[in-house]
Amino acid sequence: MFPCLHFDLRQSSRVVNMGRESGHVGWIICRFVVLAAIFLTGFIIGWFGRPSPVPSTAETPDRLDQFLLQIQAQNIRQYLRDFSRLPHLAGTEQNLRLAERIRDDWAEFGLDGVEIVSYDVLLSYPNQSRPNYISILDTHRQEIFNTSLSEPVPEGYENISDIVPPYNAFSAQGQPEGELVYVNYGRTEDFFQLERDMGINCSGKIAIARYGKIFRGNKVKNAMLAGAAGIILRRRPPLTPGYPAKEYTYRFDPEEGVGLPKIPVHPIGYDDAVHLLKNMGGADPPSGWKGALNVSYRIGPGFTGHAHNQSVRLNVYSTNQVTRIYNVIGKIQGAEEPDRYVILGGHRDAWVFGGIDPLSGAATVHEIARSAGTLLKTGWRPRRTMLFASWDAEEFGLLGSTEWAEENAKILQERAVAYINADSAIEGMYTLRVDCTPSLHTLVYDITKKVSSPEDGEESLSLYDSWHKRDNWTSERNAPRISKLGSGSDFEAYFIRLGIAAGRARYTKNRVTERYSSYPLYHSVYETFELVAVWYDSSFRRLEAVARVRAGLVFRLADSRLLPLDCEEYALALQKYSKVIRDLAYTHPDAISMYNVSFDPLFSAVQNFTKAARDFHQRLNTLDTSNDLKMRMVNDQLMYLERAFVDPLGLPGRPFYRHVIFAPSSHNKYAGESFPGIYDALFGIEHAVDAPLAWREVKRQISIATFTVQAAAMTLTPPA
Amino acid sequence: MFPCLHFDLRQSSRVVNMGRESGHVGWIICRFVVLAAIFLTGFIIGWFGRPSPVPSTAETPDRLDQFLLQIQAQNIRQYLRDFSRLPHLAGTEQNLRLAERIRDDWAEFGLDGVEIVSYDVLLSYPNQSRPNYISILDTHRQEIFNTSLSEPVPEGYENISDIVPPYNAFSAQGQPEGELVYVNYGRTEDFFQLERDMGINCSGKIAIARYGKIFRGNKVKNAMLAGAAGIILRRRPPLTPGYPAKEYTYRFDPEEGVGLPKIPVHPIGYDDAVHLLKNMGGADPPSGWKGALNVSYRIGPGFTGHAHNQSVRLNVYSTNQVTRIYNVIGKIQGAEEPDRYVILGGHRDAWVFGGIDPLSGAATVHEIARSAGTLLKTGWRPRRTMLFASWDAEEFGLLGSTEWAEENAKILQERAVAYINADSAIEGMYTLRVDCTPSLHTLVYDITKKVSSPEDGEESLSLYDSWHKRDNWTSERNAPRISKLGSGSDFEAYFIRLGIAAGRARYTKNRVTERYSSYPLYHSVYETFELVAVWYDSSFRRLEAVARVRAGLVFRLADSRLLPLDCEEYALALQKYSKVIRDLAYTHPDAISMYNVSFDPLFSAVQNFTKAARDFHQRLNTLDTSNDLKMRMVNDQLMYLERAFVDPLGLPGRPFYRHVIFAPSSHNKYAGESFPGIYDALFGIEHAVDAPLAWREVKRQISIATFTVQAAAMTLTPPA
Repeated sequence: MFPCLHFDLRQSSRVVNMGRESGHVGWIICRFVVLAAIFLTGFIIGWFGRPSPVPSTAETPDRLDQFLLQIQAQNIRQYLRDFSRLPHLAGTEQNLRLAERIRDDWAEFGLDGVEIVSYDVLLSYPNQSRPNYISILDTHRQEIFNTSLSEPVPEGYENISDIVPPYNAFSAQGQPEGELVYVNYGRTEDFFQLERDMGINCSGKIAIARYGKIFRGNKVKNAMLAGAAGIILRRRPPLTPGYPAKEYTYRFDPEEGVGLPKIPVHPIGYDDAVHLLKNMGGADPPSGWKGALNVSYRIGPGFTGHAHNQSVRLNVYSTNQVTRIYNVIGKIQGAEEPDRYVILGGHRDAWVFGGIDPLSGAATVHEIARSAGTLLKTGWRPRRTMLFASWDAEEFGLLGSTEWAEENAKILQERAVAYINADSAIEGMYTLRVDCTPSLHTLVYDITKKVSSPEDGEESLSLYDSWHKRDNWTSERNAPRISKLGSGSDFEAYFIRLGIAAGRARYTKNRVTERYSSYPLYHSVYETFELVAVWYDSSFRRLEAVARVRAGLVFRLADSRLLPLDCEEYALALQKYSKVIRDLAYTHPDAISMYNVSFDPLFSAVQNFTKAARDFHQRLNTLDTSNDLKMRMVNDQLMYLERAFVDPLGLPGRPFYRHVIFAPSSHNKYAGESFPGIYDALFGIEHAVDAPLAWREVKRQISIATFTVQAAAMTLTPPA
Repeated sequence: MFPCLHFDLRQSSRVVNMGRESGHVGWIICRFVVLAAIFLTGFIIGWFGRPSPVPSTAETPDRLDQFLLQIQAQNIRQYLRDFSRLPHLAGTEQNLRLAERIRDDWAEFGLDGVEIVSYDVLLSYPNQSRPNYISILDTHRQEIFNTSLSEPVPEGYENISDIVPPYNAFSAQGQPEGELVYVNYGRTEDFFQLERDMGINCSGKIAIARYGKIFRGNKVKNAMLAGAAGIILRRRPPLTPGYPAKEYTYRFDPEEGVGLPKIPVHPIGYDDAVHLLKNMGGADPPSGWKGALNVSYRIGPGFTGHAHNQSVRLNVYSTNQVTRIYNVIGKIQGAEEPDRYVILGGHRDAWVFGGIDPLSGAATVHEIARSAGTLLKTGWRPRRTMLFASWDAEEFGLLGSTEWAEENAKILQERAVAYINADSAIEGMYTLRVDCTPSLHTLVYDITKKVSSPEDGEESLSLYDSWHKRDNWTSERNAPRISKLGSGSDFEAYFIRLGIAAGRARYTKNRVTERYSSYPLYHSVYETFELVAVWYDSSFRRLEAVARVRAGLVFRLADSRLLPLDCEEYALALQKYSKVIRDLAYTHPDAISMYNVSFDPLFSAVQNFTKAARDFHQRLNTLDTSNDLKMRMVNDQLMYLERAFVDPLGLPGRPFYRHVIFAPSSHNKYAGESFPGIYDALFGIEHAVDAPLAWREVKRQISIATFTVQAAAMTLTPPA
């Protein structure tokens, strides 16, 4: 400012001299002009120099870089080491201690507030004096074989107490006896095949299912529906010799309307499975039903040969107990929009040590919280409020995250911008895996371009490039593959029930060459720190890369002036999924024409959505980004877009699955289904008892989907 | 600005002279000081003179006065005159023409946009060739008496065609025959008394109910539940000799889960009722069951004396038809927050001429739209978007308003600030009547203090003072009485389903001396312009006052920088209603203690809400009102407060009645019930077949109410 003022001064004195020679009137005019010019200059400087109350619209990429670079492999390593020394089963003293440790650390990191929030929920534990097992009984009902009661503890952990033996939480108590029936994977179609094609009635029998394909909870549900007296599940088969596998729980899902299982359930390992299966009689297995064990896989019911009089008994003594669980909630208050929340949440409870599930994730959350705290100390503060959550009792059915979502439902509905999930950060050593809502696609790509590949020999590549090379979405576009969200982790209540944009990222296996459904040792006692440090990620650079992706998503969502949500990506997804569901329906061409089923209204709504999204996107180019209220309005439209896909009435029979575009599959909770209402209406429709009624339901579901997509399109049009 | 500059000029020249005498350095310093001062002055003017992007926080009371003064009795008179010349039954050509007229007028008034939005809905009309009537049959089933087929048309309207005869819309077709049973008002308790105390089984009988007490739809529902073959309703009894009364429709409410009535329903007048009732036999009526007709009111079943062999037949030939209906939607775009909506809506369809219901209301909406348009032309524009709605098919079950609410549900949930209903503006000649959500109480009082009393001899009184004098809320506070919202008009979907703050105002009778449940001639062919212009409001000053109240509410909601919603009033209401429901439960003290029923959690939640509301209110005192984002955050909290009371799961058996604090009574849709979930669980609980189950339901409902109030309290706490 000073040079300018100096200039004015000199200029004015020169003009004054001029004025004196040009007569009085001219002199006054000149003087007036000059002084006016001085005044005007001051005025202009004042006018334009005044700092706008609107903060800069710049995206602060430097801050993002600082934030990401704060995140360091060795810290993640240290947190994982600390967190996984003891078992952290939900409801135990150790898991409360870990909650307190996390609370104290977050406070020390500099978060604005941290609190522990508790709930009393129903959990399920083995009976400490009567272990669960399965027996083979002879004709005198004497136990001639019992499955193992526990598993050997890995080296270095021998002195740890409180290691829970394998069990299925929420199993009914009981000692049902009966003949074994082999039910393949225990899928809906497997039970159909048993009953319809093979004429085998499972009523009163003990079902035994092989591992994989679908969520184990669905297997239990299917066995109950088939009338089985109990079900035996296989634990994760050992793919890595020397590493026995483990598989624990039935996740009670009160939302499926099934309630707690009414039959006993118990998981068994390799050797026990061989023992139970090897003498089975009955028909040979249909094509595709043979598992990997060296047995015949006959269907039963019951045993054959010398064992034909033997039966099987489940002995399950687990009890359900109302138990206190603890979430840790940390907060960084937003500077400009404290009433907009970006949530980073992952669970803390583990079946045993939780070296991968969930503590590899909890360690990343911890490091991200530390990184944010460090930036806070430099004077930075995010535009919006960041919330950090350490959930409890995820393994018992997403309990901690669901309770908190329920308690805060009203507020979250109004204020939550996005939920980023941070469960296990690694399940393989190949590349990145992202599941998220379509509107986050673009942000995920942007962030992964800012993170380096953790792979040896790829030092010059971004994570995006490495990921793209390893898992190209070739069928649809030239970009890395992103999948839709299913369930089985804590984002469920946020995304599926409340309609909050959500996503998750982790390191994964090679989907082409490694086709097993979860990583070896999943949920087992062998899931230790060493498993990660020796086997999966000795440099911890993979976890670092995942942590940076999660951090980058949260940072941009919380700090960008314009929300980084891309409604045009949602349009692309709707185009794709509407074609998929149409094609599925058209596998019944006769019925489609007989019942006048038309997807035209849905396609038309998708087209309207596409146009609304394109127009919305174009209006962003001319948006007055300095106007706080205008930005807020546009951001509200973006934030509420996901909410628009929620139907308060829920899906048929699943009142809390309210997202009309995405839901966990009714037949495998791990998998995501698009247009689930239509999908479920079409499922098995060829066997419908009342076909006209079944197709009426398909049409009703098409109309619900059409309305919902159309309504969502309307939210993107100019607000008035 | 000029005088200021001139002063600078003179001063500077004086200083220049001084400088010349004080040596060169002093001269330069002086000169510098002066020029700096000039610069600084300019700078300061520039700095502070720059209009803030934040508009003034003043409440613009002058604009409100202008707005209210624009509203003139003679215009309302003229609009009512024009609108009510012809019948405007929903689905008819005339009602579409009126929609077009309103659209064209609103556009001419200067609204930013007006459109007609159509829906195809199920309506019900009498069969043009086979009229509906009721007969008395002799033993040969010959008709020996028939009720009248139509009613004489009032003077001046003799040449009007398309006057629909009295009928109950959505009645089932049919000619059921049977004995008459007199069911008093047809309330739940009346049927209980008939069945339990008098041992009269209504199954297969024709029920005949007297007029009043509850919504006629509930009478039909109760008769159906009691197994009656048909029901005869009395039309509004003639309180004013010479003015026959009329009563038309059963309002189909798809939300009650009853569906369309499965039995024929028909309304009758005075003479026909005497004919049907006078020969009835059976027991004498219980105390309180006698109506005003000069007959014995015996219960039946059937006739006595010479008529004992006679029976009754309903002849109903009405048909349900899918028919196109038309809403008119007008818009004034908000200047600063176009994505916030304040809605003024009322229906346009009438049973016949609709002189009161609804056109006295539609005339006020028209005049308010004109007034707003006039202000627009002076350069004013409201802060938020104003929407004006002329709904169709209200008389058939709130169809037009509900369809539009359903179509725009997502957007309204996110953006609607308030809904002000504008049905009939007058139903009596005594004082104002307001039903609204508690958070509107304070605004209603503020606005009515700005409006003059329309009563002769009260020229110096405000409407507030007149109202206060005539209907003091003595039992609770020293203020005019305000009631809670029930249903029976178009606010229902907005308030009860979507949780949008809502209110209604009209001129009413004296609640102490005039105890009939609706005004004479309600819904009749005699509801003409003349009825208002001669009888109710010859100066049209009462309608003007009501119009100004409606206008003032809308204006302040749309234009105040801080939303005029008072959460402390909500706290008071919750305190009151929680005590009411507790007291109701405590009429069963033994059960309360036997089943451990406690209202403590609810009271504690109400206390938390009260504190949160008080703190919120106090924070408003220190609010930086110049900060657009801070204002928006506070306003969002106020706007979403009503939304927080909505439970997406709905009330038991009433999925679209989602407001946990207020719902139409299950037993009389016109009345509002507070804590309806608990109320319904308690209703008739002394007769519960399974008392423990019934009280468990009471406890469940208390916990739902507790959670909801607590969640609402949380929305009022600081957002981060």
